[in-house]
Amino acid sequence: MKVLLKHFVTGKATESDMEVVATEAVELKVPEGTKDAIVLKNLYLSCDPYMRGRMTKHDTPSYVPDFTPGEVIIGYGVSKVVDSTHPDYKAGELVWGMTGWEEYSLISNPQNFFKINHPEIPLSHYTGILGMPGFTAYVGFHEIAAPKKGEYVFVSAAAGAVGQLVGQFAKLMGCYVVGSAGSDEKVELLKNKFGFDDAFNYKKESDLNQALQRFFLEGIDIYFENVGGATLEAVLQNMRLHGRIAACGMISQYNLVEPEGIRNLFQVVAKRIRMEGFLVFDHFANYYKFEEMTVQYIKEGKITYVEDIAEGLENAPSALIGLFEGRNVGKQVVVVSRE
Amino acid sequence: MKVLLKHFVTGKATESDMEVVATEAVELKVPEGTKDAIVLKNLYLSCDPYMRGRMTKHDTPSYVPDFTPGEVIIGYGVSKVVDSTHPDYKAGELVWGMTGWEEYSLISNPQNFFKINHPEIPLSHYTGILGMPGFTAYVGFHEIAAPKKGEYVFVSAAAGAVGQLVGQFAKLMGCYVVGSAGSDEKVELLKNKFGFDDAFNYKKESDLNQALQRFFLEGIDIYFENVGGATLEAVLQNMRLHGRIAACGMISQYNLVEPEGIRNLFQVVAKRIRMEGFLVFDHFANYYKFEEMTVQYIKEGKITYVEDIAEGLENAPSALIGLFEGRNVGKQVVVVSRE
Repeated sequence: MKVLLKHFVTGKATESDMEVVATEAVELKVPEGTKDAIVLKNLYLSCDPYMRGRMTKHDTPSYVPDFTPGEVIIGYGVSKVVDSTHPDYKAGELVWGMTGWEEYSLISNPQNFFKINHPEIPLSHYTGILGMPGFTAYVGFHEIAAPKKGEYVFVSAAAGAVGQLVGQFAKLMGCYVVGSAGSDEKVELLKNKFGFDDAFNYKKESDLNQALQRFFLEGIDIYFENVGGATLEAVLQNMRLHGRIAACGMISQYNLVEPEGIRNLFQVVAKRIRMEGFLVFDHFANYYKFEEMTVQYIKEGKITYVEDIAEGLENAPSALIGLFEGRNVGKQVVVVSRE
Repeated sequence: MKVLLKHFVTGKATESDMEVVATEAVELKVPEGTKDAIVLKNLYLSCDPYMRGRMTKHDTPSYVPDFTPGEVIIGYGVSKVVDSTHPDYKAGELVWGMTGWEEYSLISNPQNFFKINHPEIPLSHYTGILGMPGFTAYVGFHEIAAPKKGEYVFVSAAAGAVGQLVGQFAKLMGCYVVGSAGSDEKVELLKNKFGFDDAFNYKKESDLNQALQRFFLEGIDIYFENVGGATLEAVLQNMRLHGRIAACGMISQYNLVEPEGIRNLFQVVAKRIRMEGFLVFDHFANYYKFEEMTVQYIKEGKITYVEDIAEGLENAPSALIGLFEGRNVGKQVVVVSRE
């Protein structure tokens, strides 16, 4: 079984833009004579917002290549090496990296695959807290936003894979942190499970500017940007002098043909704001350091983590589309196989 | 004679929002019993884009206070101290700082006034290349944009007080630099006097995105932002990976009631752009170092500088409004008195 992109998407992506098809019996060996390749058994697949961008045809190359219509969807996943002709990998090893939305994937010249050094942690965590989203939260908060103890931090999409960790890293730093999310259930989670100082349901706020004024009487020092659009505009209005915006993603804009305009960028000048985009790919050299630190936090119970698990590859399209509708509560994972 | 703001302005500012009125004979002494005050004879006044913001009533305080309707306009100027009860100033000294649009100003508790250490340079230069705009160009380019030799630099409002210097600092650093301006006369100046590698008249370009593609085949590493709006949107589309935007001002937006929206901020993420606002006030501690360096450049003929001089305080309102209509060629100065 595998999941294909049927065609390039303009505007709102739906499940019917993807197709789940049966596959022939799969060869579990690297084809004879093929060097530097691996065959992976895919265990857990990651649904991430940036994947929407790959469904659109770009005239000039984007930061990740467009998907190819008619071919399998590509994304981060946790996999077991079942065969290898590459000197760095051997059968039986667990890895995470870019794989296919299918049961088995043949990867030629594997790059940016990471060894899973702590299989005692649930393996699915390597699609989230110990994978790309977790490392994204770490890089964006600690390296881009450069927080100081006592600062005021706002996180949007705060119950998502990245947001929930940003909030917890902020608390571990001694910051005051407020999150926004799109349901009361998520708001409860933020306040009662992830330890945010406060949280609100943005869908219930008629005026985001006023909402932020209510939660940040002194203004915002650090904004961890996951959503863009109206939230970004309201945040700019509420930033403090010398505030920092770590721009991780803008999920509210990904399904729009014409993104919304942000009208108050002059605040960047008036308040001497630093707004900086980042992508985790640029920082992978530090990944294993992050893995050790975060495994330690998990074992000491200092970090909590919530996953939203979809069972079976056939449910992957719906799980991915659910991200853009805010259906997931916590990190959206698809289980292909538990071992 | 003095120039007053008649009333707060919404939308487009015009000369009739200001009024030139006669003044009574002025006392050239600090009033008896007043400590820490100076009386200045104003020589040269500076017309700067940020002054438009002070003409608008702000509900929440802006980075500079609003002007007071019915009172004298305040701005940077070059002045001679004619009397002082402040220990740091004495009669006869030349200074630059925030003074009034009038012949003589009484300043209580003078702050951020700088001594003019090089009166052998034309004094009017201390409203520009050696004053706030020059220091702004230096801070924004060298400290905020952090240029490297060989990088591609774009400067908007490039023939203005700040832009002309940014381009020359960029050339001194070994960068490739292109400027935009609003008339063919200014474009000629950029190419033939200030040594820009290339320049274009933005009013003659129907598509700014295509214009930038034409001038920057490899994309833009550094954008020195003076104008905002459609130019910023086109620049974001043409930035290179890890590009930097030093956000100095957004003059195209200052006369709009509702600023234009910037729709492609996702480029900040995709290209890992750092966009950073700055104000020269935060950096004044380094001013005298800048003064020495720039005086040296001027004496060695390494920097060229163009002023647009309006004669007489009565012409100050028209000179200020001219900035927003792009009438000035070079730094707009008003001469009140030559000595």
